[in-house]
Amino acid sequence: EYIAVPLDENGLPPDALEAAMRSGPKFVYALPNFQNPCGITWSEERRKKLLEIADHYGVPVLEDDPYGQLRYEGDHIPPLVALDAKLQANNGAPYTGNVIYLSTFSKTLAPGLRLAWVIAPNDVIKKLVQAKQGTDLHASTLSQMLAYEVLQNDFLPAHVKRIRALYGERRDAMLKALEAFFPAGVSWTRPQGGLFLWLTFPEWLDAADLLKEAVKEKVAFVPGVSFHSDGGGKNTARLNFSFCNPEKIEEGIRRLGYVLERVIAERGAGAAV
Amino acid sequence: EYIAVPLDENGLPPDALEAAMRSGPKFVYALPNFQNPCGITWSEERRKKLLEIADHYGVPVLEDDPYGQLRYEGDHIPPLVALDAKLQANNGAPYTGNVIYLSTFSKTLAPGLRLAWVIAPNDVIKKLVQAKQGTDLHASTLSQMLAYEVLQNDFLPAHVKRIRALYGERRDAMLKALEAFFPAGVSWTRPQGGLFLWLTFPEWLDAADLLKEAVKEKVAFVPGVSFHSDGGGKNTARLNFSFCNPEKIEEGIRRLGYVLERVIAERGAGAAV
Repeated sequence: EYIAVPLDENGLPPDALEAAMRSGPKFVYALPNFQNPCGITWSEERRKKLLEIADHYGVPVLEDDPYGQLRYEGDHIPPLVALDAKLQANNGAPYTGNVIYLSTFSKTLAPGLRLAWVIAPNDVIKKLVQAKQGTDLHASTLSQMLAYEVLQNDFLPAHVKRIRALYGERRDAMLKALEAFFPAGVSWTRPQGGLFLWLTFPEWLDAADLLKEAVKEKVAFVPGVSFHSDGGGKNTARLNFSFCNPEKIEEGIRRLGYVLERVIAERGAGAAV
Repeated sequence: EYIAVPLDENGLPPDALEAAMRSGPKFVYALPNFQNPCGITWSEERRKKLLEIADHYGVPVLEDDPYGQLRYEGDHIPPLVALDAKLQANNGAPYTGNVIYLSTFSKTLAPGLRLAWVIAPNDVIKKLVQAKQGTDLHASTLSQMLAYEVLQNDFLPAHVKRIRALYGERRDAMLKALEAFFPAGVSWTRPQGGLFLWLTFPEWLDAADLLKEAVKEKVAFVPGVSFHSDGGGKNTARLNFSFCNPEKIEEGIRRLGYVLERVIAERGAGAAV
């Protein structure tokens, strides 16, 4: 069972979180940097507020940070786990707080390696080790050795720099194309990093229907309903901007804009009959 | 909760299995080839009997076969899944029976790859894919590509042949050393394959105490209590014969025999006081 809390452009609103806490969740799942699917980044104030509320209710926070290194503009905001370690003033000592921080090599080195890491209090790590051993003993040692070798030299930071420039360009291309080709009545987020942005269509428009039309033009997206635990979000969609080059992005958005215009015009004509 | 069924030298006795079935298990776990920890191999008759009983009670069978290719003597006995497919006469058609068969590259190619395979009815495979995707999406593609390449040529069969000869020699060395150096009152299994054999000490002897003495002589083993769900088997132990060369095995068994003799003599002397 999921308790969904709607985000605004700065992250999780404290009031909504407080209300959700009264349902007694087992943990809070948070993705503060360039959230999948909507590309929203939480402000530092909102991060601190979450820590305060979670601490007050004694609820652990699972901080998922797969995209943190993929920032294309603006300043880095410390992750929840770093803010919490500072709040708890356990400088240098092993972290004993409320946050379980996850990140991964999947978005920087290679997704196929299936390698990730966790920062958490020792007792939590011990339990996670047990769970991992019970599942598949350990991640492939070949993958681990490869990541270890890569981390010995400067390959990874240089590679991250390279994909940051590449993906940043592609994000810009998509934002520019959206401005150029999308009709009025459709809005979108402007992510500072990550891989995704979020579209909101007119209330009456079902993204699943739109997808059928778009696929005929060889353009696809993920309807937003898959990201809603309550079946809502029918008039929303996720776009990925990291995969294609700027030329393809421009052409794809042009075609999607054309489909959208047609669908909206047809609806307008229908309403006029 | 586990329902333990004691094995005899031919596998799972049907009467004991029937009795256990009355507790309504969710599945039967079976390791018919060179079972870890005891090295026992189930006869074909016992395999068929298990299938019959499991089918009668409608209980699925999880067949674990990590060591099946590591046979050093005797004839290959078909796995449960093959016998069941034959019984059900679904020749050529996808398997629809009661057995979920597992094997692995860990004991033949490399344990670090964390690669294994499953034979099961399509509906079961679908559920397993879901579970795997929920856990870690998929096994490392690097590991999978490596195994794929290795399977394109003749490396793996040749390699299995090689380790079969090597491990067979080591098993023989251990059996010979046990005959030569172990005192009366200790018995052991004579596995036809796999990696392990099983020691049974006199009833009064606690393998955990013996281990403390053995470690002083730089010899270790796994006390059998870890393999008993009911805390029994205190006077048993598992020996691995695949890891060390014959010279080390001989020396190790010599030292362990020496420790055993001393412990048994001390107990004899204590009893005489």
